[in-house]
Amino acid sequence: MAYDSNNVFAKILRGEMSAHKVYEDADTVAFMDIMPRCQGHTLVIPRVAVRNIFDASQVQLAACIGTVQKVGVAAMKAFAADGMTVLQSNEAAGGQVVFHLHFHIMPRWEGQPLGPAGASMERPEVLAANAEKIRQALAL
Amino acid sequence: MAYDSNNVFAKILRGEMSAHKVYEDADTVAFMDIMPRCQGHTLVIPRVAVRNIFDASQVQLAACIGTVQKVGVAAMKAFAADGMTVLQSNEAAGGQVVFHLHFHIMPRWEGQPLGPAGASMERPEVLAANAEKIRQALAL
Repeated sequence: MAYDSNNVFAKILRGEMSAHKVYEDADTVAFMDIMPRCQGHTLVIPRVAVRNIFDASQVQLAACIGTVQKVGVAAMKAFAADGMTVLQSNEAAGGQVVFHLHFHIMPRWEGQPLGPAGASMERPEVLAANAEKIRQALAL
Repeated sequence: MAYDSNNVFAKILRGEMSAHKVYEDADTVAFMDIMPRCQGHTLVIPRVAVRNIFDASQVQLAACIGTVQKVGVAAMKAFAADGMTVLQSNEAAGGQVVFHLHFHIMPRWEGQPLGPAGASMERPEVLAANAEKIRQALAL
């Protein structure tokens, strides 16, 4: 389906909207989800204008999953997590809300269920602090 | 963490347990989840003995996500789905039950939530019929 270049992740990529970034490389950017379902909930997106998994090239997907692993390992350390759930939603029926390909990294702890999607906005200072923890873990 | 070679996916890879396979290549195998959360719920695993995303190489992850895309597109066609949710769980706290790296492909339809994980076993004849639909879509 068509790519709408006014989606919020496209705006973040163009620098028109800010984000609490934790990692970026030539192909991907990772930043905090502003409506986290758990502490440390982070998103990984490709720089290219791709709606979802159906439109992505295998090279773009490989770059994304590589960054998911790298940032996920750091988030596990940063928040002393016991596990991690990776979620990737396609089209509205699949749970997609922003129509730029993205992977959710969600650190998990024993006995602690995920919160609902899109429940409430996190405070910017909390997101900033969590982003800093992941950046520090990435630098180890 | 350690890899237990007695997990059910290792047994499927060794041919010691059967599975309703829909696709395989040099690096990956895809087959029906026996406790589906939706019609067409399919799993993609690497052939290598890898516990979860933390232990996988970037090449192995790239192979898996490539197969997720390929089989996911076919599953969308096979079941006339409106969307798709991809889930990848790591360690028990992250929702992992079988400790061999796997990606869930879950076709989705508008207004139809996912069923709970691990709720009930699907009948073999239903799994066989669904696998055949995906194989046919892959052959198009």
